[in-house]
Amino acid sequence: MIDNTFFEPVQGLIHQVEERMRSQSDGHHPELNSALQHLLASGGKRIRPAITLLTGGMLGADKDRLITLAAAIELLHTATLVHDDLIDGSLFRRGMPTLNARWSLAATVLTGDYIFARAANLAAETNSVPVMRLFAENLATIVNGEITQLFANHNLVSREDYFRRIYAKTASLFETATTSAALISSVDESITEKVRNFGYQIGMAFQIIDDVLDFTGEQATVGKPLASDLRQGLVTLPALYYVEAYPEDQDMKTILDSSICDEECMARLLTSIRQSGAIQQALNIARQYVDRGLDSLKGLPDCQERHALEKLALYIVHRPL
Amino acid sequence: MIDNTFFEPVQGLIHQVEERMRSQSDGHHPELNSALQHLLASGGKRIRPAITLLTGGMLGADKDRLITLAAAIELLHTATLVHDDLIDGSLFRRGMPTLNARWSLAATVLTGDYIFARAANLAAETNSVPVMRLFAENLATIVNGEITQLFANHNLVSREDYFRRIYAKTASLFETATTSAALISSVDESITEKVRNFGYQIGMAFQIIDDVLDFTGEQATVGKPLASDLRQGLVTLPALYYVEAYPEDQDMKTILDSSICDEECMARLLTSIRQSGAIQQALNIARQYVDRGLDSLKGLPDCQERHALEKLALYIVHRPL
Repeated sequence: MIDNTFFEPVQGLIHQVEERMRSQSDGHHPELNSALQHLLASGGKRIRPAITLLTGGMLGADKDRLITLAAAIELLHTATLVHDDLIDGSLFRRGMPTLNARWSLAATVLTGDYIFARAANLAAETNSVPVMRLFAENLATIVNGEITQLFANHNLVSREDYFRRIYAKTASLFETATTSAALISSVDESITEKVRNFGYQIGMAFQIIDDVLDFTGEQATVGKPLASDLRQGLVTLPALYYVEAYPEDQDMKTILDSSICDEECMARLLTSIRQSGAIQQALNIARQYVDRGLDSLKGLPDCQERHALEKLALYIVHRPL
Repeated sequence: MIDNTFFEPVQGLIHQVEERMRSQSDGHHPELNSALQHLLASGGKRIRPAITLLTGGMLGADKDRLITLAAAIELLHTATLVHDDLIDGSLFRRGMPTLNARWSLAATVLTGDYIFARAANLAAETNSVPVMRLFAENLATIVNGEITQLFANHNLVSREDYFRRIYAKTASLFETATTSAALISSVDESITEKVRNFGYQIGMAFQIIDDVLDFTGEQATVGKPLASDLRQGLVTLPALYYVEAYPEDQDMKTILDSSICDEECMARLLTSIRQSGAIQQALNIARQYVDRGLDSLKGLPDCQERHALEKLALYIVHRPL
């Protein structure tokens, strides 16, 4: 059985984070309010706020500042998704229509900008200059990662590029979540460094598992076609291991040459990747990240929040594959 | 003769602000660097940095923080222009191709986001929580204004809506420029309030004059077709006064009904507005804003920066019309 009880110590606080996020359009245009409520209703696992709340809870952060911080983290994440979906032309996310599917380009760009502004405002409300600096740097890192991907030459792939990309895309915000929770607590630098590293490691694992799920998931569960990244020419870790093992695979070459790999070609390639052991190799890497994350928690206060963080780390690599 | 010598006391600092802005893509993707350099090369009058530097100079702000702040203000302005041009589909600004004219939607959205991030980062480098808060609130105000305009019912116009819109679009950032310069200086609240009001008043005047120039300018100088706002159904102050005086004008009704006003209709309307006294009425309002701005400077330190701010305020309403 997979233990996903890590939300328990912060269940009540998560509700307050939701409230905090929902109130961010108060006093502004009704259409912005409607867009924000739509985005927040589409849910998401709220894993980033949970990590923030658990880390801050473990380190004795003030509850109010912590709720503000967790809302800021999730809104920063939400804002980047709005612009991502627009850029990718995605029409659905988590089974709900994306903003760009319902709204004009203008309204979607502006809503993303508005949510950035509200995330920055919440970050400022923590009253911590280092937290605000982290937020600004994190946004630059995320955007730089996307620009890099946009201009990347897709037929040249390396593990180094892959790890750099998933750091920018995902791990950097997990790292910001744990680091900023420490920054608003009264702890010394060595503790901040431990939780920063924890956030980094589980963030890397989280994205690798997401990339694995893109190959192993049931289409109905994942909510998008399997191998969706590969269909767009984006080589993630399982595909990368496969290319390394079978550099002469014709179907993969088709994709790397930016040629059309039709459904037959995709189905063949998917089967080959699944049977090659590449998935297992990627999973092993994710588990190593989680192990290093767990190591990082050693010596931190022995409390229910820390135990929940440990469960959360294990949950990340044991989500239904 | 129009006195535009207000840049003199801060000429050297403006160069440092330029350097500061240009270095914001260091260490990031070359395409981001190229986009940023392109945007900064297109110039702009740098009137916002000048106001920031002059206000901070008058109030004894630390030079380094002030340069950082002025760069943050101008980058926030630049970022909003990138997304504005994208939304409006503008192909030129200040005689140079816009980013969206040369780049993909994705690259343009992301470059705007990146510049927001760098503006936030510079704001954070001032080490002032209130400054960061102002920045975040200002961005929300600007975006809320644009969303409001986007969803506005164009055939219902009021002075109240107009003034609210130009506050969001322009005056709010002038206000942030002067207020944040005071916030990084060691001055008491009454002084901060005086310069905040100065920024507000000249920001309102600045936008009204811009709107007047849209009717009175020479097409070659303005760099876009005359009455460009009205062509898009946007009623600015001169048009507003004209509608109030001639509610039955058929050409204006055509525009307010979102019907096509062809070149002949536009030319007729432009002549009618120019001959109606509406331009003069709008100019008078701008002058009243400037007068209130100048009043606000009374009692502030009698120094070359203050004199330059006074010149700048007068320059705003005496730009070649």
